[in-house]
Amino acid sequence: MSSVISAPSQDGAPPAHTTAARAAARASGAAPALAALSLPTRARLLRRLSHAMGENAGHLAAVAEDETRLGVERLRGEIRRTQTQLEMFADVVEAGAFLDVMIDPPDPGARPAPRPDIRRMLVPLGPVAVFSASNFPFAFSVLGGDTASALAGGCPVVVKAHDGHPRLSDLTGELAADVLPPGVLTVVHGRETGRDLVTDPAVRAVGFTGSTSGGRALFDLANGRPDPIPFYGELGSLNPVVVTPAAVAARGADIVRDYVASVALGQGQLCTKPGLLFLPAGHGLEDRLRETFAAMRPAPLLGLWISTAYRATLAELAGHSAVRPLHLSREPDDARTGAPALLTTSAEEIRTRPELLAECFGPASLVITYTSADDLLDTLRVLPGALTATVQGQQDEDGALFHRLSAVLQAGRLIWNGWPTGVAVTAAMHHGGPWPATTSPLHTSVGSRAVARWMRPVAYQNFPEDFLPEAVQLGNPWNVPQRVDGPWKPAD
Amino acid sequence: MSSVISAPSQDGAPPAHTTAARAAARASGAAPALAALSLPTRARLLRRLSHAMGENAGHLAAVAEDETRLGVERLRGEIRRTQTQLEMFADVVEAGAFLDVMIDPPDPGARPAPRPDIRRMLVPLGPVAVFSASNFPFAFSVLGGDTASALAGGCPVVVKAHDGHPRLSDLTGELAADVLPPGVLTVVHGRETGRDLVTDPAVRAVGFTGSTSGGRALFDLANGRPDPIPFYGELGSLNPVVVTPAAVAARGADIVRDYVASVALGQGQLCTKPGLLFLPAGHGLEDRLRETFAAMRPAPLLGLWISTAYRATLAELAGHSAVRPLHLSREPDDARTGAPALLTTSAEEIRTRPELLAECFGPASLVITYTSADDLLDTLRVLPGALTATVQGQQDEDGALFHRLSAVLQAGRLIWNGWPTGVAVTAAMHHGGPWPATTSPLHTSVGSRAVARWMRPVAYQNFPEDFLPEAVQLGNPWNVPQRVDGPWKPAD
Repeated sequence: MSSVISAPSQDGAPPAHTTAARAAARASGAAPALAALSLPTRARLLRRLSHAMGENAGHLAAVAEDETRLGVERLRGEIRRTQTQLEMFADVVEAGAFLDVMIDPPDPGARPAPRPDIRRMLVPLGPVAVFSASNFPFAFSVLGGDTASALAGGCPVVVKAHDGHPRLSDLTGELAADVLPPGVLTVVHGRETGRDLVTDPAVRAVGFTGSTSGGRALFDLANGRPDPIPFYGELGSLNPVVVTPAAVAARGADIVRDYVASVALGQGQLCTKPGLLFLPAGHGLEDRLRETFAAMRPAPLLGLWISTAYRATLAELAGHSAVRPLHLSREPDDARTGAPALLTTSAEEIRTRPELLAECFGPASLVITYTSADDLLDTLRVLPGALTATVQGQQDEDGALFHRLSAVLQAGRLIWNGWPTGVAVTAAMHHGGPWPATTSPLHTSVGSRAVARWMRPVAYQNFPEDFLPEAVQLGNPWNVPQRVDGPWKPAD
Repeated sequence: MSSVISAPSQDGAPPAHTTAARAAARASGAAPALAALSLPTRARLLRRLSHAMGENAGHLAAVAEDETRLGVERLRGEIRRTQTQLEMFADVVEAGAFLDVMIDPPDPGARPAPRPDIRRMLVPLGPVAVFSASNFPFAFSVLGGDTASALAGGCPVVVKAHDGHPRLSDLTGELAADVLPPGVLTVVHGRETGRDLVTDPAVRAVGFTGSTSGGRALFDLANGRPDPIPFYGELGSLNPVVVTPAAVAARGADIVRDYVASVALGQGQLCTKPGLLFLPAGHGLEDRLRETFAAMRPAPLLGLWISTAYRATLAELAGHSAVRPLHLSREPDDARTGAPALLTTSAEEIRTRPELLAECFGPASLVITYTSADDLLDTLRVLPGALTATVQGQQDEDGALFHRLSAVLQAGRLIWNGWPTGVAVTAAMHHGGPWPATTSPLHTSVGSRAVARWMRPVAYQNFPEDFLPEAVQLGNPWNVPQRVDGPWKPAD
């Protein structure tokens, strides 16, 4: 078939005087040299970024606290987590398995056709735009997981700073500029600049953490380009928690305590906050739930834009005819403060009223009562995709129910007898899930596999050995894991 | 942030009486049992599909020849290739590495936070829609690479048959129905049904091989859904071939012979046909090119819709003021026949006239002359992404030029002193590339990694051992490769 194929570099290039275009051009200029760095050198940059954060942790935390009110202790912990992420990706780079090298030696006698020499590896996509999150000013921000994984993959990054912490973003960007080659990381500000980045011809992929509506708008922009680019968005998630009748009977009080603590973490401003708690009808925990929620201290949210949205969504849910409040207090005088709230409804109502599945970002949650296993399962089937789904059960009694549950829960991480908040930074972690949890169910934004979002395969056919990148040479001078004509071969 | 999240199963479900909705519902019903099959059982199904094709090769080839006119010998070869693909994915399933199992044991003392037990593996996405290609009635059709890789991943498939070979599609579908459980593979027909499939709530991903315009329209549908789904399209590719001055001097005549043979393969109806040949100005090969092209025999194309589009695109290119025909014959009387054509222009013209980069699907190609290495490189930079890019050079003389070339060529497969047509079915093959070669530069439609398109990761946190899928149990009853807290551990 025939059609005119236009080159991306000639289409829709914004005027070079915009902030986005300048930042993207800087990133583009820095891309070849970054991609050409040896793996140890690339890893060293990541370790030096971690070191710079550690050296400046006190100052960083103070600026962050001033802007976000998340609490200095939590912010110091988040700085350490961000350092851990940078160091994990340094490990990933040094191990070399992320290049996914595969080598098929030639076979002139192969059927149905002779087989050429094929060496395959992953190469960087090019400049990446990262939209940082409000609720993790370090771990999902300028030097957060998206940036760390993109740098690990060899891609320069332009970070669109979140409006909730602009000074911290600039400060972090300055620390990074002392470590990284020019153009490898640029911090920009403003909604319009963010949109320009997504459509800039030099930008080859986008990472985003934020609201479903904001993420969807940028996702549509990325896919509407003349040359669509990958868009990795982490959007909304209800993170259902199912409590079995056996678990209520065995340890109902403990479950209430830990559930409320999980909702309260970060004032409910975590993407993994348990937004739905499924309890058997007649659970007998209403008073305890009410009391425990009432003991939560109202606290300032990340900004006025969060508290305003929180109050509006909460008012709509609490006023719904199918919903009964379990704990509601009057709106605090301070407009930035969000009062904890607990509502309840039935599983049957959830199945017929999709408006009850609104994500209420802040310290609120919804208790859903179910009358039978079928009532529960039918309701779980209509839930949208989530980052997490949790089952609180009794191992000896709930085996059969558990297997039915795990067949219908649509989530990136399934948790048994734990709580979804607190995403461990480990190699195998998966932080993602079906829409609307993310825009791309295949990928994670936490864990070692996050680097795969920023790379694409290239196959080299019949190349002379010394024309090939080091990683796919049979002599293996970079000592990376190579799968040569068969099972994976780990590096020494 | 707050926003209403609607469950996919409640949005935009087409009336259940449409062909697409029925097929998708059948696939949905078959999904859990298919996903639950043991790996050896899943592999056996793929081998039995290959066996069924081999047993019926004569009949299949005859029906295909009647519909496509590709030639019985080529079609028998394509059947063997399709069998090889099915068997390769059976190998992939048996080896188990495609599940990408990673296990992080718990560490209560980890900093900055205790580490839970995390087991990660890939699970099937669910029902997949596959749009088959006109030009490979077996290898990219009902039981082609998309279907084979989706079945390997544990996903049921609904194939939208190509209008160019409907009887063959039904025949292949019937063979498959004798092997597979009900609902695992369904063949449907018609453009409207294809569009309905892409927006059907039960369909979780789409594979497509075809034109840039057709693919783009379906890509936009998939991304415009209330719940966007992954769309893997292989669209248009110009497959540039660069010949260095040294190569022209050393073996110009051989290069002309092999280039024309590559253009002629399948009457130019291959996605990897070399559409652009870069030659140094004053190459002295014009007469030889003209003669060799003139010796090609005009032959019927896949269908009237192809020959019509071919003639229209060719007429536009040949009539362009910046283009000079090297070989053009008058239009054959048979409307389905496409006459070979060779045109020429300069690198400078390509840089300023993007309309010259139209893909002309059929036995035509464009020779582009360059005056210097810079002229060549500047022009390569404006080319759109391609499935392949080839360099014909002299290893001893072209080292410096080669490294500059490989830095600017944007393609999924780079070839040295070979030709792009003939995609070897090997584990490491990458058949993909940046837009518009594909809609997703991270993925391949050929080779063992093609299965990754149909799977998503799930992390299991703190699960009792016997609640876990076999593949992530520490006892490893399925004997799959597991990466346990460190480097990859191959299966015995």
